[in-house]
Amino acid sequence: MKNFKISAIQFSPAFGNLNGTISALKPLLKQASNSNLVVLPELANSGYNFKDFDEAYSFSEVPGKSIFVDFLITQCRQYGFSLVSGFNERCGDLIYNSALLINKNGIAGKYRKIQLFMNEKDYFTAGDKSPDLFEVAGAKIGILICFDWVFAELWNGLASKGADIICHPSNLVLPGKAQKAIPVWAMTNKIFIATANRIGTEGNLTFTGNSIIAAPSGEFLASASPDSTEIISAECDLTLARDKMITPKNHLFKDRRPELFD
Amino acid sequence: MKNFKISAIQFSPAFGNLNGTISALKPLLKQASNSNLVVLPELANSGYNFKDFDEAYSFSEVPGKSIFVDFLITQCRQYGFSLVSGFNERCGDLIYNSALLINKNGIAGKYRKIQLFMNEKDYFTAGDKSPDLFEVAGAKIGILICFDWVFAELWNGLASKGADIICHPSNLVLPGKAQKAIPVWAMTNKIFIATANRIGTEGNLTFTGNSIIAAPSGEFLASASPDSTEIISAECDLTLARDKMITPKNHLFKDRRPELFD
Repeated sequence: MKNFKISAIQFSPAFGNLNGTISALKPLLKQASNSNLVVLPELANSGYNFKDFDEAYSFSEVPGKSIFVDFLITQCRQYGFSLVSGFNERCGDLIYNSALLINKNGIAGKYRKIQLFMNEKDYFTAGDKSPDLFEVAGAKIGILICFDWVFAELWNGLASKGADIICHPSNLVLPGKAQKAIPVWAMTNKIFIATANRIGTEGNLTFTGNSIIAAPSGEFLASASPDSTEIISAECDLTLARDKMITPKNHLFKDRRPELFD
Repeated sequence: MKNFKISAIQFSPAFGNLNGTISALKPLLKQASNSNLVVLPELANSGYNFKDFDEAYSFSEVPGKSIFVDFLITQCRQYGFSLVSGFNERCGDLIYNSALLINKNGIAGKYRKIQLFMNEKDYFTAGDKSPDLFEVAGAKIGILICFDWVFAELWNGLASKGADIICHPSNLVLPGKAQKAIPVWAMTNKIFIATANRIGTEGNLTFTGNSIIAAPSGEFLASASPDSTEIISAECDLTLARDKMITPKNHLFKDRRPELFD
C-alpha cells in the first residue's frame, strides 16, 4: 500500500476576518501541496472567542454559500489534495461547531462537534449524529474536534468503524493535556491521528499550538512548537492501522466485551 | 475529607515458591504499614511464565484455602491496612487470573481479569463479570489487571460507577506503553490509579517495573525504577476524584452521549 501523506497546518485564523484568514492560508496551503490530506484548525473560518451568540452567528457561514469553502475548493483543485477544516456552520437560526471534508469536487463530508467546551455551549448546538467515515485517496478518515479528545468512546467508535486516520481540528487552550492523550488514543485504537491546533491570542484565551501527528505505535510522527505558524507532515503506512492484532492472540476489537458494560 | 494513603509494592514473586514470595513480602509490607491500601502485582502467589496449563494450575490456590491469602490476612490484622493482590485462583478445574481485596476480616472482594494477554488465554478462563466497586476506609476502589489497561471501557466503566481509585496489579512486559496510558485514563476519568508492576525475569520474559501512582490531573504522584524492589506511596485527596466537572460547564459523565455509539 502506498503511504498516505497527511499535513496539519498550525496558524492563527483572523477573528471575524475571512479575507485575512484566506491571505494567511494561501502560502501555507501551497507549502502543503504535496499532501494527500491537509488538516486545518477548529473554526478556521471565524475564530473562536465570541462575545455572545450574535457575534458567533454573524461570523458563521452556510457551507453551500461560503466564501471560505469556495476558497478551499479552489485550493483542492489547484493542488490535488483534500482538506479537513474546522468551520463555523450556519443552519437556519442555529450554528454548529463543524468540520468539513473538502476536495476538488466540493464538500465531501461533515462532522458536527459532539462535545462542546465551556462557553461554546452558549453559542453552538451540539452534534447529535455518530461521526461518519469518509474515504480520501484510499484512506478511511474520521473527524473529531478539539474537546472531543476527552471522550474515549468517540475515538474507539470511529476506530471500530474502520478509521485509519482521525483528523482533529482544534483550538486547545489547556497546555499539554490533549497532547498527552492523543498518542494514547492512537495506540489503544491502532490508528493515526492528526491534531491541527491553532496558535495566537483572542481576548483572555491563548491557544497552545503543539500540533501533533501520532502513529498507531503511540509515537509522535511530527510535532509543532507552542506558538509559531507551522506545517507538520507525516507519511502514514495505512497497513499499520489495518492490522488490529496487538499480539498474535489479541485482537483489539474482537476481544472486547461490551456486553459487560451495558 | 482525610487523605487516603495508597502504596504499590514492586517486587519479584518467586515462581511457584509461595514461601519464597512470603519471605520477600514480609519486610515490604512492614515498610508499607502506614498505608490505607497496599497494592501488589498480578499473580503474586504463583509467578507468571508457566510452561503449560498444568503448571499454571499446580501453582493456583482456592481463595478460602490459600496459604498466601492467610498470610495476607495476618498482615492486614497486624498493620491495619487493606491489600489488593494479584492471585492465581483455582475454581474446580479452571483457573482465573484474579485479584483479591483482603482486609483483617478476610477476603472482601474479587476481580477476575477480563482481557487475557497472549498465552494467558491458554491457561486462564477470562472473567465474565463487570468489575465491582469496593469500599476501603471511605474510598471507592475498583480493580483491573495488567493488559486490561488497553481497553478504555474498563476504566470508564469503573469510573462512571463511582471509583475513586483503581488498583492495577500488573506483570507488564512492554516497556513504557501502559505507563503512557495510565495517566490518560486517570485524567480522562478524574480518578487515581495505582499500578503495581513486578520486576525480574522468568524464562524469556522480563517484567518492566516502573510502577506508578497517577492523579486525576494526569500527573504522576509517584513512580518506581524499571528494575528494583521498591515501595511507592501517595496521599490521595479523594475530593479530586469526586468532582467530575472538567470545566464549570462540562461534566465528565453527564455530558456523554452513549446513545450515539450503540
